Amino acid sequence: MKLSRMIVMTSGAVLTPALSFAQEAPAVVPTDMIWIMNTLLFLIGGFLVFFMACGFAMLESGLVRSKNVTMQLTKNMGLFGFACLAYYFLGYNLMYPLGSWSVEGIIGAWGPAVMEGVGVGADGVDDYAYASTASDYFFQLMFCAATASIVSGALAERIKLWPFLIFVVILTALIYPIQASWKWGGGFLDGMGFLDFAGSTVVHSVGGWAALAGAFVLGPRLGKYSADGSINPIQGSNLAIATLGTFILWLGWFGFNGGSQLAMGSIGDIADVSRIFVNTNMAAASGAVAALILTQVIYGKPDLTMILNGCLAGLVSITAEPLTPGLFGSAIIGAVGGAIVVFGVPLLDKLKIDDVVGAIPVHLFAGIWGTIAVVFSNPDASLVTQIYSIVVVGLFVTIASAIVWYVLNGVIGIRVSEEDEVKGLDMSELGMEAYPEFSKNS
Amino acid sequence: MKLSRMIVMTSGAVLTPALSFAQEAPAVVPTDMIWIMNTLLFLIGGFLVFFMACGFAMLESGLVRSKNVTMQLTKNMGLFGFACLAYYFLGYNLMYPLGSWSVEGIIGAWGPAVMEGVGVGADGVDDYAYASTASDYFFQLMFCAATASIVSGALAERIKLWPFLIFVVILTALIYPIQASWKWGGGFLDGMGFLDFAGSTVVHSVGGWAALAGAFVLGPRLGKYSADGSINPIQGSNLAIATLGTFILWLGWFGFNGGSQLAMGSIGDIADVSRIFVNTNMAAASGAVAALILTQVIYGKPDLTMILNGCLAGLVSITAEPLTPGLFGSAIIGAVGGAIVVFGVPLLDKLKIDDVVGAIPVHLFAGIWGTIAVVFSNPDASLVTQIYSIVVVGLFVTIASAIVWYVLNGVIGIRVSEEDEVKGLDMSELGMEAYPEFSKNS
Amino acid sequence: MKLSRMIVMTSGAVLTPALSFAQEAPAVVPTDMIWIMNTLLFLIGGFLVFFMACGFAMLESGLVRSKNVTMQLTKNMGLFGFACLAYYFLGYNLMYPLGSWSVEGIIGAWGPAVMEGVGVGADGVDDYAYASTASDYFFQLMFCAATASIVSGALAERIKLWPFLIFVVILTALIYPIQASWKWGGGFLDGMGFLDFAGSTVVHSVGGWAALAGAFVLGPRLGKYSADGSINPIQGSNLAIATLGTFILWLGWFGFNGGSQLAMGSIGDIADVSRIFVNTNMAAASGAVAALILTQVIYGKPDLTMILNGCLAGLVSITAEPLTPGLFGSAIIGAVGGAIVVFGVPLLDKLKIDDVVGAIPVHLFAGIWGTIAVVFSNPDASLVTQIYSIVVVGLFVTIASAIVWYVLNGVIGIRVSEEDEVKGLDMSELGMEAYPEFSKNS
Repeated sequence: MKLSRMIVMTSGAVLTPALSFAQEAPAVVPTDMIWIMNTLLFLIGGFLVFFMACGFAMLESGLVRSKNVTMQLTKNMGLFGFACLAYYFLGYNLMYPLGSWSVEGIIGAWGPAVMEGVGVGADGVDDYAYASTASDYFFQLMFCAATASIVSGALAERIKLWPFLIFVVILTALIYPIQASWKWGGGFLDGMGFLDFAGSTVVHSVGGWAALAGAFVLGPRLGKYSADGSINPIQGSNLAIATLGTFILWLGWFGFNGGSQLAMGSIGDIADVSRIFVNTNMAAASGAVAALILTQVIYGKPDLTMILNGCLAGLVSITAEPLTPGLFGSAIIGAVGGAIVVFGVPLLDKLKIDDVVGAIPVHLFAGIWGTIAVVFSNPDASLVTQIYSIVVVGLFVTIASAIVWYVLNGVIGIRVSEEDEVKGLDMSELGMEAYPEFSKNS
Repeated sequence: MKLSRMIVMTSGAVLTPALSFAQEAPAVVPTDMIWIMNTLLFLIGGFLVFFMACGFAMLESGLVRSKNVTMQLTKNMGLFGFACLAYYFLGYNLMYPLGSWSVEGIIGAWGPAVMEGVGVGADGVDDYAYASTASDYFFQLMFCAATASIVSGALAERIKLWPFLIFVVILTALIYPIQASWKWGGGFLDGMGFLDFAGSTVVHSVGGWAALAGAFVLGPRLGKYSADGSINPIQGSNLAIATLGTFILWLGWFGFNGGSQLAMGSIGDIADVSRIFVNTNMAAASGAVAALILTQVIYGKPDLTMILNGCLAGLVSITAEPLTPGLFGSAIIGAVGGAIVVFGVPLLDKLKIDDVVGAIPVHLFAGIWGTIAVVFSNPDASLVTQIYSIVVVGLFVTIASAIVWYVLNGVIGIRVSEEDEVKGLDMSELGMEAYPEFSKNS
Repeated sequence: MKLSRMIVMTSGAVLTPALSFAQEAPAVVPTDMIWIMNTLLFLIGGFLVFFMACGFAMLESGLVRSKNVTMQLTKNMGLFGFACLAYYFLGYNLMYPLGSWSVEGIIGAWGPAVMEGVGVGADGVDDYAYASTASDYFFQLMFCAATASIVSGALAERIKLWPFLIFVVILTALIYPIQASWKWGGGFLDGMGFLDFAGSTVVHSVGGWAALAGAFVLGPRLGKYSADGSINPIQGSNLAIATLGTFILWLGWFGFNGGSQLAMGSIGDIADVSRIFVNTNMAAASGAVAALILTQVIYGKPDLTMILNGCLAGLVSITAEPLTPGLFGSAIIGAVGGAIVVFGVPLLDKLKIDDVVGAIPVHLFAGIWGTIAVVFSNPDASLVTQIYSIVVVGLFVTIASAIVWYVLNGVIGIRVSEEDEVKGLDMSELGMEAYPEFSKNS
């Protein structure tokens, strides 16, 4: 046993625990208190994950050209708003049928979410061994909305507002919750032993697959790929807010992964939450460093957008298993994630799939890597089951998304006109510039 | 009773509560622990509401022209600084006289705030059934400062710095605390049964009334209203940071409303905090969506600034009663708030009241709506009392504010010269541009 | 004893504690729960301090010219990434040898950090009287990284990326942890009775000394000081994000100082955390107000960058002792900090030490002040010991840093070419502008 840090670090405060010991305090935590602490974890985790919506909005706004910034902001506000409604009306109960499956293990329950009553007591709560339903709902809603945020970045600068928002409603009401129920709702993938602690597959790859299908149907931005095969990089308009967005996402990820422990009312649980925090942080750091070093080596200059995405890829990579690796393992997992971005971005460009912010390498490629990497540190994981689950989820989400995108494209068209795209979506679709006094476009 | 989500969602962690049960843990929470949890709620809620100061600063800076951004930032830093001093010297004890009223139920106690001592024990705390005084002070101070932040946006781009800051001192030392004592300090409105959970009236409408009085005395910006009756929209310079500010405010509102439960040391309390979180979030989302849809329908194009304000109006609307409505009710309350903004902004313009950021529709109009809406979900609310309280608070704040504004105007003048206004307050009053390399004005 | 606020402030919730009392709940907190609460304090404090990395990035990016913004963002992402690796591999055990000193009281233990295992129980934790090791590691890592962030601002706009990052690795792996062990690891300064609650000296002055040494070796920016002795102010490119950064730092400081209580599992501890919150906030507010008033008086115009730095200096000043002063004392301590900035910035310029963002006045000068100010409120403090410790830490850090800077300069050169500096580091070193569509430089 190590010596106490408290004795050497503070003066007045340090004796308090010792004094409490002297009062012959009981060791065990009252059961009401466990429920309270679990609920508090969801609330804190939930507001941190909520803030990721802001992170995505800033990241994406910073990585598009100034003529499309108002639109990107509008999409991010709008997608979050609609996601909240869709998850309430359908998503939550589809994701957590709690035994009332429509199709056992595959499709959950239909109907809007219901919270516990005001001033509920211990005997009235939905699950005394767990936490308040509203806190769980709050936490889970934010994951669902994050999935939609992933899509908006990839399809920026050319997709119309309303088809995008309609897709978001379908994604957050149906596609995300149904596949999420397979693992987190206790469905068939969970029954097979699939492990995905906080959603490298369930959240990030799902956003990535939906974005990939959309990018394919939508086609690349004008001028991105020349007829002669050359690729024209299109620079973001505001790397300061893109970096801000990345830091906010990093912050939010402590809630994303830490909250997914789902409990902090015992020593074991909160010690695990702590491990998750440090592992998550390490993976982000090593992802950023890997991208920094790799772009220096490969291109002779560090590339800030790659560093930002490397950091995020590190975070995505550790998300499937942020608990069992040690700090060194987390550093490796994150660094591989960072490398995946550095190589994944040009790969997508070779395939002429135009992903404006790099969401597909970050969330899909690194999400797959993270899901597989579970087997390196968690002995309960089966490589076959991990891969099977990645494929099943990928097929479902990609096919469902592609159908929605094709139908939307056929019925109302999902892409703005060439003229509007050149002019920028801000003026053509919204009539409002984000930086009316700065931009050379104005 | 629902099935446990824990069993289906994690692996290692899930058995911990069950194990604790096996140890025959007591159910009840120790009384010291209740005090600790209540205090923690104030601390977490408090830092979230603190961050709203940043949200207001970003929102307002983004919605003014670039020639006035440094001034808007200076006002926001300055108002917060002065509010902290004013609330310490006078505000806190005026707001919470704790039985030592100067005028019973109307004017509280005079004198600076006093915190509990270092290392206080259970028998030395100011109120063992409650929470630490410093945590309560921290939380309440942030509400007071938020009220001042509301004013700064409405009066932007033409008010001088020092008259504004003097007004802030009077508002935060006297006007806000006195009226707040009527409800939250146990004064006469509280005695009548007025209900305002987190301050649709006590905070938001107060900021709105003070802003309205100021905007009236100050007059509109040059060029805003033409002699021929036409209204010239003046665009904000940076919608990215305006959106950032809105997301930060949304985040802070979880502390604003959730912390106003004032307790989380029991199952009932933290379950209520959780309900408040989801209701608050739903009202924000539906306010944003309502504004998005309405501006699409009315103007043919969604308007991002309306969406941002619609979101904020949804938040203001749910603030008077974030606990008792269900999610559906919260969605309706928030959506009406969003609609109020869409119709309220042009209404103010018709009255030639120039509110730069839309603070009056958001905080005053939606604040009134939210205060009335309490009667729809809380059976303890009386419509008559709610309206009576809105009117009493409104009259007091408006009259007191108008007197201060008129006196300031008469004595030192509150408005910059026409030349300075055209040039921009940044160069004329501060000699420093916010974006010296970007703006066309420079 | 004061009357209960709860009775007058809410309706439904208020009776809960009373009801619990009626159940004859025990007063004392179970020992497991103390451990859980301490751990939670580190986690919440830690993510708040983490967010300060974002605050520094925004502050610094806003205060450099647009041609150097991408570089400043890259440095901030990079330094944080490398700091996480360095603190893991060497820093943590050097800082907290826990009895296994290499040189007793002076140089700690060598080797990477090790966290507690997954699902640890009460009998397996490293220190049952304290908190989870991972939570402590998380919290302490953020302090180490903050030290490096301080350096990056002062040396902006002319230092090469890689020499800076190499310095960061040495700072965070060796220099910071070794001197931090002298106080917080229980080393010789702690033994002498040196008091530094949250690091006015251990963190802030250390960053300041390292920056001072670097600024001295590096020399001022081209054009900053004319041959005729005149000083040319160089304006920041984006005061909105500089202000954002300041607000984020202010927010993070609640974790920085509040978390440094190191415990919140008793009434005394969390009441102290609450005191720390209000004192910290007051010092920030009064630092900002002092700078606002002083620049008005001295220069005839309030200076926003001085106000931002005044606020930060107020925070640095209260950091050595945020607990024992009352609110009035904290206001004085913070105001002096704000004044130090107003006079310190021109002083540095007279010495031709070019500190781009004012980091040296804020973190070093105010850090010294704050360390001395401990003696005014804490009877355990000795002025001689405080000054002795300031000097010892200052000598060690300055000499060690200067050696590293000179070696780096001799071996690879730390400064970009004149041509590159004029062109801006973004295009010359990174080939990527932060605002490609806005800046006049592009």
